[in-house]
Amino acid sequence: MTSDSKREWRKNTLDPQVHRFPERQDRFKSESGIDQDVLYSADDLEAAGWDYMKDLGFPGEYPYTRGVQANMYRGRVWTMRQYSGYATAEESNRRYKYLLEQGQTGLSIAFDLPTQIGYDSDHPMARGEVGKVGVPISSLRDMDVLLDGIPLDKVSTSMTINATASVLLCFYIAVARRRGIPPASLNGTLQNDILKEYIARGTHIYPPRPSMRLVVDVFKYCAAEVPRWNTISISGYHMREAGATATQELAFTFANAIAYLQAAVDAGLEVDDVAGRISFFFVAHNDLFEEVAKYRAARRMWAKIVRHRFGAKNPRSWMLRFHTQTAGVTLTAQQPDNNLIRTTIQALAAVLGGTQSLHVNSRDEALALPSEEAVQLSLRTQQILAHESGVSDVVDPLGGSYYVETLTSQLEEEASKYIETIDDMGDAVSAIESGYQVREINQAAYLHQQEVEQGQKVVVGINQYTGETPPIEHLLSVDPQSTEKQVRALQQVRRERDNSSVQASLSRLREVASGEECTVPAILECVESYCTLGEICDVLRDVFGEHKDLVAF
Amino acid sequence: MTSDSKREWRKNTLDPQVHRFPERQDRFKSESGIDQDVLYSADDLEAAGWDYMKDLGFPGEYPYTRGVQANMYRGRVWTMRQYSGYATAEESNRRYKYLLEQGQTGLSIAFDLPTQIGYDSDHPMARGEVGKVGVPISSLRDMDVLLDGIPLDKVSTSMTINATASVLLCFYIAVARRRGIPPASLNGTLQNDILKEYIARGTHIYPPRPSMRLVVDVFKYCAAEVPRWNTISISGYHMREAGATATQELAFTFANAIAYLQAAVDAGLEVDDVAGRISFFFVAHNDLFEEVAKYRAARRMWAKIVRHRFGAKNPRSWMLRFHTQTAGVTLTAQQPDNNLIRTTIQALAAVLGGTQSLHVNSRDEALALPSEEAVQLSLRTQQILAHESGVSDVVDPLGGSYYVETLTSQLEEEASKYIETIDDMGDAVSAIESGYQVREINQAAYLHQQEVEQGQKVVVGINQYTGETPPIEHLLSVDPQSTEKQVRALQQVRRERDNSSVQASLSRLREVASGEECTVPAILECVESYCTLGEICDVLRDVFGEHKDLVAF
Repeated sequence: MTSDSKREWRKNTLDPQVHRFPERQDRFKSESGIDQDVLYSADDLEAAGWDYMKDLGFPGEYPYTRGVQANMYRGRVWTMRQYSGYATAEESNRRYKYLLEQGQTGLSIAFDLPTQIGYDSDHPMARGEVGKVGVPISSLRDMDVLLDGIPLDKVSTSMTINATASVLLCFYIAVARRRGIPPASLNGTLQNDILKEYIARGTHIYPPRPSMRLVVDVFKYCAAEVPRWNTISISGYHMREAGATATQELAFTFANAIAYLQAAVDAGLEVDDVAGRISFFFVAHNDLFEEVAKYRAARRMWAKIVRHRFGAKNPRSWMLRFHTQTAGVTLTAQQPDNNLIRTTIQALAAVLGGTQSLHVNSRDEALALPSEEAVQLSLRTQQILAHESGVSDVVDPLGGSYYVETLTSQLEEEASKYIETIDDMGDAVSAIESGYQVREINQAAYLHQQEVEQGQKVVVGINQYTGETPPIEHLLSVDPQSTEKQVRALQQVRRERDNSSVQASLSRLREVASGEECTVPAILECVESYCTLGEICDVLRDVFGEHKDLVAF
Repeated sequence: MTSDSKREWRKNTLDPQVHRFPERQDRFKSESGIDQDVLYSADDLEAAGWDYMKDLGFPGEYPYTRGVQANMYRGRVWTMRQYSGYATAEESNRRYKYLLEQGQTGLSIAFDLPTQIGYDSDHPMARGEVGKVGVPISSLRDMDVLLDGIPLDKVSTSMTINATASVLLCFYIAVARRRGIPPASLNGTLQNDILKEYIARGTHIYPPRPSMRLVVDVFKYCAAEVPRWNTISISGYHMREAGATATQELAFTFANAIAYLQAAVDAGLEVDDVAGRISFFFVAHNDLFEEVAKYRAARRMWAKIVRHRFGAKNPRSWMLRFHTQTAGVTLTAQQPDNNLIRTTIQALAAVLGGTQSLHVNSRDEALALPSEEAVQLSLRTQQILAHESGVSDVVDPLGGSYYVETLTSQLEEEASKYIETIDDMGDAVSAIESGYQVREINQAAYLHQQEVEQGQKVVVGINQYTGETPPIEHLLSVDPQSTEKQVRALQQVRRERDNSSVQASLSRLREVASGEECTVPAILECVESYCTLGEICDVLRDVFGEHKDLVAF
């Protein structure tokens, strides 16, 4: 090979071919808009100055491009973790047990909207939303029911909860303690990523700065008391779902991560005490190779950030571990079985990219909460990938591919530019306050929408190959009485608890929140006195104030 | 990078990891039994003496490892070609029109068993089999109905037919001629691969040597009269379905191909007049990367064989073009929706491997012929891969992957050893006569079966993650009257035709078959006189004799 070989080929072989038979598009772009050359070759890596040891290296070694463990899925395949929760704690508990029976290896709790924004199930703001998109958890009683019969010392549990993360963590710890399981042996992940809520997801309560303090309080508490818990799962998922490109997903996620880590350091924590418990959450979108490259770029970027920007010394701190979920926005209500094809390719991307855990969306999720049958198939998707396709037997099977290595470097480079821009604005919090990320994402979403409408981007069953297919059968139907049941249970808790210790623990929380001390022990005390989620959040609302959404553009 | 870097990594990083956490299997093997190292790196290619230009090169250039066209699917995506046919010519015609409406881009005709082994629909040997696994075609009338309203000058048609290949080709040509379409403008593929029928598929009629003559007659005729037709599709598919490994699939297919090409040369044809119209047919099995490597190895091997062994001068002769079908044997009747996951991964392998055309099996095919609904989803699978996943936008996206390049070379090496063994036995025909391939395949099938039974090989829903799922709805039900309809139509043909020209053309065929002349023009004359398939084959049975299956082990 000489560095001219691709140029020669282009002249002698490619150009005459394209001259005779025009290509089917004028321009080929990745899902996220990166120009795609017709072919990638050794010349491309050479021209880009790609360095084998520096850019790729070996799995389990810095910069971890090829994976965080040396042997990855040969040791243990990724955790199969279907996000789930609906109706009531009882119903959701039944679903969790079903999933574990079907071979799921971790839990992932979806909370309803009132729980996410700190309202009890009987609050007027909760009306019509109780148990809709997740399980309602208003008190220790609900969490106890939710986890009934689940071996908390064996299973790892992920909780998608942000503004009220520390309250839900305390519910979980309190249930464990009642069962004699020490918090130090608990495994799991708290989403606890409030910054992206201001950018994309919207379930925030307090303004950004007191919210950051609550996040750091969790870091502090867990470093001491729940050392195996992943204290945050910094999420690109929701920004991508809102329309961000893969580059923006990487950049805005890491800008937020930098802000969290900086806040922890500023609060006096050692970077090596915090970084090793940070995890990430990315989407698996349609573009197979761009997604794989994204995960690989993410590992390399994070390793550099933690090691060089924050000076972490412990290799564990440098390792990016992440959960993946297939892209909800790509599901179509039309021809719903097409979603099975999409999610299979997306799940494959996550696995080829070395994810630590995975949720595969169900075919019926554009229509309803997934049925038992649909979620079983999501799990089967993971099991077939793990045990039949061979992709879990060799580490980073795409390593060395000229295309994937080029794309990995391109994504890193583009995302790094964004991070520099945010650095120039101060930090992610300042950028959020100025509406920067939201504007960038909206612009990308607009472009995408235009391309779909004009047919440049094909969505099978929507703007091409349309037509009716039989409707999906056996959609999940939720018991219409479930809200009433939940509210009755909550009112019983209020009747039966010791109201003086409720008042005492809430006062103590108010005092702590008004000062500098870590809020988590005070919240745990509230929780164990059967204070409700709403009562705890009302105290914090009072002390911190409430955030109004910015209209920044 | 130094060539020691992997060794260092193994010692410093991998071994301590594996020592602490034992791996989930003692040994990792590809689907076909090739040992899989935990990781492939630049060291592996270096150690194997891998040469960038010699082993990889550029697409559209010898040895075509990366693809036969310079820009592959950027010009035009693969032909989406769902194999189909059942009940009657009328019913099958309706299905073809449905498929074309749904965006299918080529036809693929499945014939029923009587048609494949040369019996008319009203022959006693046909009883119970008419229209079962394909469409019954007994005369020109049936083919005319089958192709009603199909633009033969625009569509390309593949016909899975072997022992009776030349008869069916003549039916097709005759229909075209009646519509004023010159044979020279017809596009399509005839399977016409009789050798693998003795190894695996079983639809042979005559002994191997006269069968070879019929194959070569098609080569001769088409070289002169139907120059755009692919005169043979040499198939590894059925051998793999019978239990062959990927290596055996490659080796036995190419050994057969060598025999065909040699027979053509021996019959006085120029290699460059024949080789460019040879096509191949491979399976897409479960093991994603092994399959991709197999297609890449196949292109490299074939280019070398045709160029160096046969001395072909025209680059077109060197190019291996192939059709792919997902693996029927991997479909399960239990939890049938799992098949959608499997076929998606398999179809992806075919596309990443640069297939020219593709059939995706339907989820219900372990239970029945595919329903319209099921086959639509097979087509959607292809369309989503083509237009949503990004995999058709960059040529050979895995090129350079240390794993895939290593596997490509390994498969080439192992398959080449098998070919040498067969060379030593004389040729593929001699090896078949001695039962060699059948024995090798049976041994591989036995090993596989053992591993499934002992649980070393996981089949989701069968030996792990079992349990009932709701049955598939809307299975295809075939009109129970269809055989009668077909037989009535055939008898009407016999009544209305000119029996003196029938007799004359059959006599002429007997004369030609007994000599050395090309049989195709005589068959065409029979066909145009409305001789039936059975009548034509009876003449040839009489002249050539019938083959009895070997029991060679």
